[in-house]
Amino acid sequence: MISALALLSGRVHLRCCLRSFQSTPNLASSIISGAKAMSGRYGIIERGSVYTSDYKLYITGPNGPLSAFHDIPLHADSSSKEFNMIVEIPRWTNAKMEISKEQRLNPIVQDVKKGALRFVDNVFPFHGYIWNYGALPQTWEDPGHMDERTGARGDNDPLDVCEIGSKVHPRGSVIRVKPLGLLGLIDEGETDWKILVIDAEDPLASQLNGLADIEAAMPGFLDATRRWFRVYKMPQGKPANEFAFNGEFRDRDFALGVIQETHKQWQAMMQGASGDAHGIARDNVSVVGSSSGIDQPAADAAVSAAPAAAPANDKPESRVPDSVGKWHFV
Amino acid sequence: MISALALLSGRVHLRCCLRSFQSTPNLASSIISGAKAMSGRYGIIERGSVYTSDYKLYITGPNGPLSAFHDIPLHADSSSKEFNMIVEIPRWTNAKMEISKEQRLNPIVQDVKKGALRFVDNVFPFHGYIWNYGALPQTWEDPGHMDERTGARGDNDPLDVCEIGSKVHPRGSVIRVKPLGLLGLIDEGETDWKILVIDAEDPLASQLNGLADIEAAMPGFLDATRRWFRVYKMPQGKPANEFAFNGEFRDRDFALGVIQETHKQWQAMMQGASGDAHGIARDNVSVVGSSSGIDQPAADAAVSAAPAAAPANDKPESRVPDSVGKWHFV
Repeated sequence: MISALALLSGRVHLRCCLRSFQSTPNLASSIISGAKAMSGRYGIIERGSVYTSDYKLYITGPNGPLSAFHDIPLHADSSSKEFNMIVEIPRWTNAKMEISKEQRLNPIVQDVKKGALRFVDNVFPFHGYIWNYGALPQTWEDPGHMDERTGARGDNDPLDVCEIGSKVHPRGSVIRVKPLGLLGLIDEGETDWKILVIDAEDPLASQLNGLADIEAAMPGFLDATRRWFRVYKMPQGKPANEFAFNGEFRDRDFALGVIQETHKQWQAMMQGASGDAHGIARDNVSVVGSSSGIDQPAADAAVSAAPAAAPANDKPESRVPDSVGKWHFV
Repeated sequence: MISALALLSGRVHLRCCLRSFQSTPNLASSIISGAKAMSGRYGIIERGSVYTSDYKLYITGPNGPLSAFHDIPLHADSSSKEFNMIVEIPRWTNAKMEISKEQRLNPIVQDVKKGALRFVDNVFPFHGYIWNYGALPQTWEDPGHMDERTGARGDNDPLDVCEIGSKVHPRGSVIRVKPLGLLGLIDEGETDWKILVIDAEDPLASQLNGLADIEAAMPGFLDATRRWFRVYKMPQGKPANEFAFNGEFRDRDFALGVIQETHKQWQAMMQGASGDAHGIARDNVSVVGSSSGIDQPAADAAVSAAPAAAPANDKPESRVPDSVGKWHFV
């Protein structure tokens, strides 16, 4: 007999034949109008206008829309050393886009703070995010879990990832990544692991296997990563962030351990009673053994109910505040 | 009797009434279809598609298209301490856009090297250009002039400017700037002054009057500026650039002196026989005493003869090479 946890593992998700989908990557477009094919087996559907509170980016799979949080397998291959990453924020951009935990199918939306759409400030010498930033699907940092290593609770989010490869990946890309290490940020008192990864298809990927390899190939980049996280909220008048382990990076094995822990925390959350879901929309089209499964027509309906797509002549840049052009010196 | 040089000074250029134009900033649009009003008294007309060799951005004045190089007054005010700058490359972008010396009316075009449209590489930790980069109109670094201070000849271009303010200015903007200092780059053996300026409308402009003020308000920015110019061609296999004065910045007065010298070199070039023009298209609609003056209908015709405007559904990003997403470590 297979346990519910085993059924919830990341490798037995999509009900359709992936092979046939991979050879017809535009299939999703024929199901929901407006779907864009991305590289690989996933696509996106954007609804609402970017840089407005209406904006929602849905990920589509072979059968149509799915949950970015729950339906994309964590493991990208059977070796368990490569993972799927969902790109929320392309390198050198500022809009704080993230998977919505609360909205049905967990689209990527722009974070709102104090009523305003959030753009991170540029702290000299950096411009926006210095990696492709995103999340690992099917992971969750349980806010009920006190981490003994950090002395802080989880931040109630999917695990964050910093992809350091040479390509800027568009928002909503699902890419296969290889973990290389980890930084233990304590962000406003919550444990907020940052997993350093590289796109498995990057020309450097085969040469990079850990922190020392990053330092050799990209001198100064680890220090820049730590500094970025330390100072990124300071222009808003907040104090410098703190770190677990005095800001020392931890190695690939440590990162792999955290990925497995947070995958288990996600599994437990998906299995729990609805009252234990911390406000998370658990609707999904593929998680075996989940009590929140919905069928594809219901997923299609969730997207259809979202705001209309942006008009063709939309000028998103006109909505970016001038402050996003400023460099802060902290 | 007024000398030809006096007539060529930067303050008596536009034949129409500027006051009436300032109150009707869209006048240019009614003359040439497709003109966009920018802030202030100038607008732009883009022809061809950006990131193609067809692309040309023309500046428009109150009566229509004009020469970005020759028709915009160098001096923005009567005190001779503020100047007009033409923004060629907005901060954090990579496309090497510059005023064409050779093409009629000197539109902004993308530089081509070895048959390829040129994008500057990102050298860590920088992304693209770290200032709004551009040129001072009515200036020219005479390649026939051996500079005694640098031991190198002029680079046959308008004077380059790095605008350090907090706003990203769109390509083709004409902004009023205040010089603060200068860096003496020797770029592949040619004298290539870089004037540091700040947008006169920047919130910091009144506080910044020289190099020490920059260092106080923007610690590390001067060093970053020098490093940027030292290394920016190294990813292409070229050696580090060298500097006059051991890379020391020179002050505001030095910068003002260089601006006046290169303005005089431009005046002399505009007065010279056509054989002395170093291939420069000197056509202009407003330079008093110039032998290359054309009337406005001829300027309009030059723009009309340019490639058609890009189609509304053009996707310029699709033409940006992936290499522009890469960080180089040199």
